[in-house]
Amino acid sequence: MTYELYYWDGIQGRGEFVRLALEEAGADYIDVTRQPQGTGAMLDIMKSKSEPHLPFAPPFLKDGDLIIPHVANILLYLGPKLGLAPADESLRYVVNGLQLTITDFVAEAHDTHHPIDMSLYYEDQKPEAKARSAAFIRQRIPKFLGYFERVLKRNPKGPDHIVGNALTYVDLSLFQVIEGLTYAFPKAMAKRKAEYPALLALHDRIARRPNIARYLASPRRLAFNEEGIFRHYPELDSTE
Amino acid sequence: MTYELYYWDGIQGRGEFVRLALEEAGADYIDVTRQPQGTGAMLDIMKSKSEPHLPFAPPFLKDGDLIIPHVANILLYLGPKLGLAPADESLRYVVNGLQLTITDFVAEAHDTHHPIDMSLYYEDQKPEAKARSAAFIRQRIPKFLGYFERVLKRNPKGPDHIVGNALTYVDLSLFQVIEGLTYAFPKAMAKRKAEYPALLALHDRIARRPNIARYLASPRRLAFNEEGIFRHYPELDSTE
Repeated sequence: MTYELYYWDGIQGRGEFVRLALEEAGADYIDVTRQPQGTGAMLDIMKSKSEPHLPFAPPFLKDGDLIIPHVANILLYLGPKLGLAPADESLRYVVNGLQLTITDFVAEAHDTHHPIDMSLYYEDQKPEAKARSAAFIRQRIPKFLGYFERVLKRNPKGPDHIVGNALTYVDLSLFQVIEGLTYAFPKAMAKRKAEYPALLALHDRIARRPNIARYLASPRRLAFNEEGIFRHYPELDSTE
Repeated sequence: MTYELYYWDGIQGRGEFVRLALEEAGADYIDVTRQPQGTGAMLDIMKSKSEPHLPFAPPFLKDGDLIIPHVANILLYLGPKLGLAPADESLRYVVNGLQLTITDFVAEAHDTHHPIDMSLYYEDQKPEAKARSAAFIRQRIPKFLGYFERVLKRNPKGPDHIVGNALTYVDLSLFQVIEGLTYAFPKAMAKRKAEYPALLALHDRIARRPNIARYLASPRRLAFNEEGIFRHYPELDSTE
């Protein structure tokens, strides 16, 4: 069965966390909105008057008739099927917990450019975005990255993976978090990144995995841009 | 085995979504920080230098040696054990998806009083909180509640529950969302609530369930206050 991923066309955004898992596993999937009439097909589902399992927002995955919304939920579902979740069932809750911490971090990264009203443009909330970004750089990036660094370093199976002794989807998502932050806040990250050696090493190992390297070099990997979650507005970046 | 719930003492907050499930099921649990030295015990886990499955933040649940962080993850874990999840495995992803939409909504409700910097007081970000609350009332409350109303109404098994033909933890969480919004934004909710009859009826049915009614009348149910997620600041409420 071909998985169908539905997400806004033209951005990495939240969909990218799912794409990385599908690409690493070499799964058979369609990125629906990059097909002709794909965005229309996505909106048809979102506006359906009859679909009982209506998603609130993209991304969502369709596997046959089942519609699964939310990144962490999609990865929870796909993880075991793609060989990207621990065999030990109880560790799946550990993995899901880490993914939900990433979810929160990503939402906060989004709010750096949209702290007041997500229906308005960034340009309509620039002073507030500057204040929120300053707090994000000063407190939240160190808090989240420091946390993941600690968890990685104390993995009883070693710091090659964040849980257990094999790759999980959380490792892939951490790669994307580092990618996104480095794009959005290059100065802040340049200043800080030496504090997270285990996390940076994980990022670099993921980038070198054959399926990931092939994906990153392909046209399927869109460039970051100022429509997505991680946006580079130089005026929001700082070394404090 | 007695479940141990760890959450900040003195507030309903995010912990309340877990408490409602435990209380409805009559589960054997300890609300750890309400015991003597409980907060110290929570902080010991959070500051542990050796715990591999370190939580990023409360709430977290301890079941034996397993530590499970994040409300939606805790409920995913407890749901089947407490009889509050669908028997059909694929519906568990539907339930988890709905719970994650509630998670996002709750985070946005929090940010109405902390739009810029969660390490500062509300009083340090009042004008921004007013602007964010206005957008929340005008756009986000109708978007989220309208969504849940639609999903409830089109449940193929009828609108008594949001998924399937039996109570799930999402029904309990929706009760709490309505409770919290009505506390925080009474004017906005008074004006709008007639638009969500199925959701309001669900709320009222949950309140009448014997175990929930008993819990709500007990000292275990703390009052809402201005330390929690849902806060009533009259200046942030409006009928638009």
